[in-house]
Amino acid sequence: MRVLVWNENIHEKEIPEMVKLYPGGLHGYIAEFLKCDEIEVSTATLDELECGLTEEVLKETDVLIWWGHAGHHLVPDDVVERVQRFVLSGMGLIVLHSGHHSKIFRKLLGTTCNLKWRNDARERIWTVKPNHPIAAGVPETFALDCEEMYGEPFDIADPQEIIFMGWFNGGEVFRSGCTWTRGNGKIFYFQPGHETNPSYQNPHVQQIIKNAVKWACPVKKNIALICPHAEALEK
Amino acid sequence: MRVLVWNENIHEKEIPEMVKLYPGGLHGYIAEFLKCDEIEVSTATLDELECGLTEEVLKETDVLIWWGHAGHHLVPDDVVERVQRFVLSGMGLIVLHSGHHSKIFRKLLGTTCNLKWRNDARERIWTVKPNHPIAAGVPETFALDCEEMYGEPFDIADPQEIIFMGWFNGGEVFRSGCTWTRGNGKIFYFQPGHETNPSYQNPHVQQIIKNAVKWACPVKKNIALICPHAEALEK
Amino acid sequence: MRVLVWNENIHEKEIPEMVKLYPGGLHGYIAEFLKCDEIEVSTATLDELECGLTEEVLKETDVLIWWGHAGHHLVPDDVVERVQRFVLSGMGLIVLHSGHHSKIFRKLLGTTCNLKWRNDARERIWTVKPNHPIAAGVPETFALDCEEMYGEPFDIADPQEIIFMGWFNGGEVFRSGCTWTRGNGKIFYFQPGHETNPSYQNPHVQQIIKNAVKWACPVKKNIALICPHAEALEK
Amino acid sequence: MRVLVWNENIHEKEIPEMVKLYPGGLHGYIAEFLKCDEIEVSTATLDELECGLTEEVLKETDVLIWWGHAGHHLVPDDVVERVQRFVLSGMGLIVLHSGHHSKIFRKLLGTTCNLKWRNDARERIWTVKPNHPIAAGVPETFALDCEEMYGEPFDIADPQEIIFMGWFNGGEVFRSGCTWTRGNGKIFYFQPGHETNPSYQNPHVQQIIKNAVKWACPVKKNIALICPHAEALEK
Repeated sequence: MRVLVWNENIHEKEIPEMVKLYPGGLHGYIAEFLKCDEIEVSTATLDELECGLTEEVLKETDVLIWWGHAGHHLVPDDVVERVQRFVLSGMGLIVLHSGHHSKIFRKLLGTTCNLKWRNDARERIWTVKPNHPIAAGVPETFALDCEEMYGEPFDIADPQEIIFMGWFNGGEVFRSGCTWTRGNGKIFYFQPGHETNPSYQNPHVQQIIKNAVKWACPVKKNIALICPHAEALEK
Repeated sequence: MRVLVWNENIHEKEIPEMVKLYPGGLHGYIAEFLKCDEIEVSTATLDELECGLTEEVLKETDVLIWWGHAGHHLVPDDVVERVQRFVLSGMGLIVLHSGHHSKIFRKLLGTTCNLKWRNDARERIWTVKPNHPIAAGVPETFALDCEEMYGEPFDIADPQEIIFMGWFNGGEVFRSGCTWTRGNGKIFYFQPGHETNPSYQNPHVQQIIKNAVKWACPVKKNIALICPHAEALEK
Repeated sequence: MRVLVWNENIHEKEIPEMVKLYPGGLHGYIAEFLKCDEIEVSTATLDELECGLTEEVLKETDVLIWWGHAGHHLVPDDVVERVQRFVLSGMGLIVLHSGHHSKIFRKLLGTTCNLKWRNDARERIWTVKPNHPIAAGVPETFALDCEEMYGEPFDIADPQEIIFMGWFNGGEVFRSGCTWTRGNGKIFYFQPGHETNPSYQNPHVQQIIKNAVKWACPVKKNIALICPHAEALEK
Repeated sequence: MRVLVWNENIHEKEIPEMVKLYPGGLHGYIAEFLKCDEIEVSTATLDELECGLTEEVLKETDVLIWWGHAGHHLVPDDVVERVQRFVLSGMGLIVLHSGHHSKIFRKLLGTTCNLKWRNDARERIWTVKPNHPIAAGVPETFALDCEEMYGEPFDIADPQEIIFMGWFNGGEVFRSGCTWTRGNGKIFYFQPGHETNPSYQNPHVQQIIKNAVKWACPVKKNIALICPHAEALEK
């Protein structure tokens, strides 16, 4: 299974504390904890040619992980359309945290993906579907002492499954872990992961992302998207 | 539109404070705030003949509201099967609070409907689908100072729609307002409503139940449930 | 309730038989059978300024009906984005037949909306959810002697509800009547309606479109789409 | 993975042609084509003690396959409740053909599971979700020359996913392959498989059932079903 971790890699250049939290940047850190016998990982960032998301690279990618925030508008539309085409052709997509406002997520969901937000909240994650593959080995509940609050109403297309729900100490709730299918591709959104909070160091968060990668890995890939004239099969 | 409010009417006989909260019992109180030009309301209770849920009564009922708690096991199985048959034939069903463990709700959902619980919590309701008819006129969020906590994981069949989510001060979250279709009947579950808490006095809670009654009212009723041998329509 | 029937109005200028089928064009014909005490109807076409879909017009529209085929690419992107914004803000949308490939439908669903197709098939529509408001008064099944075959796999985001399914004499099946929610807006897609076939003359097809308009009419409209920073509600 | 194939084994004793089609009975035949390195298979029938579905047997079962028709009423209610409990606790369930009317399927879905039917139809199966694990290796469409027609409306709780749809030469359509989750258990229903037709000899049908078994295999099993009083986690 080949996983590509994409990160805009902007905050890393500006916020010293972030580099201490996540040496090698968010992409490097996530790639590191995903690596195992089953999973081959590479990374790509915004400043690479075509954002590092060329035809050649995507053809070889089973699951794409997306972290973006300040640079959503800097991803060219044709790159976004290419990523969408690969998702519809079978590639899995994991969208993390502020990726809710990425062009690719909004394009696949068809909605604004707006939400409420506030920094420095206490969050508690609840597992709503304990027997889903993405919840394997994850406890019923666990806390994140400091995370950005994302609150309802979350303007998303109704998820196929809600696997995790989030509670925040300021009184908010959130559909924190959701799945969708678009074309032949599986999509998972997971809410924790503010750039200056240590959520990706949390073993449960790491487990969830690992599980999601396995779940989103396609049965088939690079499936042609066609709208054929079809002869009658029955007389 | 004809609505029947069913209540086991057990706590009313044992808890004096409850009668002050809800004069006439929960059934009487709910019936009272539902009454309007469009809605004709009657009530039925556990101690009536056949629980007040005879063929004749159900034939004339568009939407049945259910409140039960201590007496779930006292509702005879054949009455439950009759109510199920009427729901599948088109009658709407609104299940309130501890009705999550009623025989009829478990029978229609196919699951245990288990959940976490604790008395005397502070709850905050969030409207997740603001443009759903059941949310008409309901604010984005409102608080219930004292309500029983019902927490996830809630063992229900995946809802068709989640309209309201609940936040509790002890750290829990809940899918507090959900819809399902079973056969020709529409079902809405709404979580607030512990017998010794004043939630049914809350104008937003009243609005939600009124909206739900209108939403659940069938297009057609008393539809025959058949499994016919069918001649070919095409050659 | 104010309904706007949008039609690209291209085939009407080229195919004489079509004008006999649908005097006044598809938009005029559909507007005519929708008109009633409850429903105020107007029309708009591709060759009007901004396709007749200005801010002012959409602000006053409860439900937009969309018929397009040969001119999908001629609808400017900014008009499509405006229509999307109004749907997310509450406006209902009914997409008919070849509108499956319109920019607006693909944008809201996030998929290619590809399908199989062939002209001059015999179709049979089946009502799968007989008690849905869109199926009110519609028989269990009815035939269309000549309609364009649209066949599975239909590359759509999973519908919230499948209300009608289509059978074709060449051996194909289709999810012919489906609903989705996007933001605050309700969407219904209905498959029959090839420009040279008389399907919109069929009383059941007319009933379905009338029902869909009532179903898609918003509870609230012109809702602001925001992503607010939010102060904590609880301490 | 341990799979148990349950069959009422009634027609096998009465219809000589069936034994030629399916030597060893339907249970024996299905068990035979499922067996492989990954899958350990055993069988159980109605005439065994407790229908062969004891606590001990179910505790060791990952996925239960169910074929029944004439003897649905002969399965005792307490056995059905036990099977339901094991599904809710994580065991996968594959219900085949006339099992649509089994007590266990109706209990888990909450509906009548009624449908239209007629013997000796020509059927064509369409793959609607080509990238679902249950569709792995299955072509876009394949025909069954002689199968029992099951037609819509099919009175089921809305499926989580529709993977296959059926076309019949008499003009009918059907949601032929559907999934649900109930509690911790995954459920798949597949329509082909009339006792005197050779559908289980079809390699695509065999592939679908094999795929479904792998898909339904639980992450965790024998999960306790509880409704706990819970102390507050947050202050």
